[in-house]
Amino acid sequence: MNQVVIGVDIGGTFSKFGLVDKEGNVLAEGSIPTDKYDKVEDFQKSLYEAIEKAIAPIKNTIEIKGVGFGAPNGNFYKGTIEFAPNLKWKGVIRFADIFKKYYNVPVVLTNDANAACIGEGLYGGAKGMRDYIIITLGTGLGSGIVANGELIYGFDGFAGEIGHTIIEPNGRQCGCGRKGCLENYASATGIKRTAFELMCNMLEESELRQYNYYELTSEKIFEAAKRNDPIALRAFEYTGTILGAQLANAVAYTTPEAIFLFGGLAKAGELLFKPTRESFENHLLDIYKNKIKILPSGLQDKNIAVLGAAALIWKELEK
Amino acid sequence: MNQVVIGVDIGGTFSKFGLVDKEGNVLAEGSIPTDKYDKVEDFQKSLYEAIEKAIAPIKNTIEIKGVGFGAPNGNFYKGTIEFAPNLKWKGVIRFADIFKKYYNVPVVLTNDANAACIGEGLYGGAKGMRDYIIITLGTGLGSGIVANGELIYGFDGFAGEIGHTIIEPNGRQCGCGRKGCLENYASATGIKRTAFELMCNMLEESELRQYNYYELTSEKIFEAAKRNDPIALRAFEYTGTILGAQLANAVAYTTPEAIFLFGGLAKAGELLFKPTRESFENHLLDIYKNKIKILPSGLQDKNIAVLGAAALIWKELEK
Repeated sequence: MNQVVIGVDIGGTFSKFGLVDKEGNVLAEGSIPTDKYDKVEDFQKSLYEAIEKAIAPIKNTIEIKGVGFGAPNGNFYKGTIEFAPNLKWKGVIRFADIFKKYYNVPVVLTNDANAACIGEGLYGGAKGMRDYIIITLGTGLGSGIVANGELIYGFDGFAGEIGHTIIEPNGRQCGCGRKGCLENYASATGIKRTAFELMCNMLEESELRQYNYYELTSEKIFEAAKRNDPIALRAFEYTGTILGAQLANAVAYTTPEAIFLFGGLAKAGELLFKPTRESFENHLLDIYKNKIKILPSGLQDKNIAVLGAAALIWKELEK
Repeated sequence: MNQVVIGVDIGGTFSKFGLVDKEGNVLAEGSIPTDKYDKVEDFQKSLYEAIEKAIAPIKNTIEIKGVGFGAPNGNFYKGTIEFAPNLKWKGVIRFADIFKKYYNVPVVLTNDANAACIGEGLYGGAKGMRDYIIITLGTGLGSGIVANGELIYGFDGFAGEIGHTIIEPNGRQCGCGRKGCLENYASATGIKRTAFELMCNMLEESELRQYNYYELTSEKIFEAAKRNDPIALRAFEYTGTILGAQLANAVAYTTPEAIFLFGGLAKAGELLFKPTRESFENHLLDIYKNKIKILPSGLQDKNIAVLGAAALIWKELEK
């Protein structure tokens, strides 16, 4: 019998799952919509049915050892999803507990960035590292921190929110209700906001000027930058400069061996990495200089969220 | 035989030592000057002789299990003191290795704030906590971070430098060669610099105006504040506001159960704690609000540095 776990990434629109073995091979996979279900119970029932359908062809060859979930605002200690702004299920959802009725195995849950962080350690570029950080640059900025070989959950299960450190008092308004959080500068949304600021401050022609706020995306800024669009280029420079400076601050906290960047914005490659690394080294305290790597995630082209959820439960089963 | 360890706090001017049992009782203690010795070997010889003299009366009743050092720029992994600006011994000093010739027991070393952090956990207010932070507010701002029950040394042994996070780009010049580090705002030196800024910006009479830069101290600001001096009061408010905001950012990294403040400035009590706590709660991300305590160190009136160095080696002996 092939020992496997089920890894599930719960997203605002879609939820993806995979049957994953210890080496990170995905033996079956699938997805269901998330936002179609007003009740979490209905969602879980559909998820179970989709999983069963996907694994049916190999059911006799596998032994399911556990289920891991990555979810927005997921709490590892309690197995809950709490007040997730992008999900229909409001308040505190005892997600892991409720799901246990489908499979008589350990079920664990954490937030998506934490799951990605564990996935990077088990299957990605952080293999063998005891101290590293992962930064996911999507709609927001998610982060997971590993120190002394363990993910930092904090005393109440919600640690690792570097995207919500305030870097600019009275800065850009944040969805969290405060102002100046890092994710409003360094993320797919952040670079779009930056482009609008630059279209205000600069006079150069730019293809970005033809888009309204709803139309502009980080992908379009990336495409424009590749064509040497001055505002798009400046937007990446600005984003990398801010991100690098803040990652230098992160080093003063936990001093990782490497920081991995993942997500849509990280796909821009050197356009983002070059200014980020330069600013990072410029801002580092002397004792940290030229020691710490900023790298693309080793799972950039794979489904890090599903692999992360799978890695989460594998780590748990090891204990 | 009473099992004990030797804890040593190496300071720029004086170095203090204590013979400490598992419960934190100090059975003997003493100190020697640090800055009198150009060579670390001469310093260590004098230290050894002073220790032997102090423990002579009880030598037959004790068994020395280990030696722990807290030192500026101390590296736990290597047992070295590296480029410490306030010590005469320049470059990288293999301090722990050199000292091993005096006692045939384990010798470990870390930086002073890390030692204080471990001391707070073993003997102070953080007993039983798995996630906490200690902030020492002296000449600079030192910090130690415990997560998952372990002190965070980082991959190279120098983690936990919250005082050197840059909070104000192009802000106050820092001794580290950069600008805007937290410790230039929140520390004994920081509040003095703030007082000078306020004497510039405000017009109110203040007893602080009679002191020049070399004469003014955080103690004088504290005394003036107790007499309702407007500039001294404002200086504490400003310091607490900045400190609280940055501690809220620290929570987004490791989410401690409590943050302990220690050192000269922390002795100002509510003058510092009140604005710090207010700013802290105001700046916290929603999910962290009203959960995390900001407390005075439980070892404020004891020698936390010596107890911390002792706790360091006790923790090591447990492994």
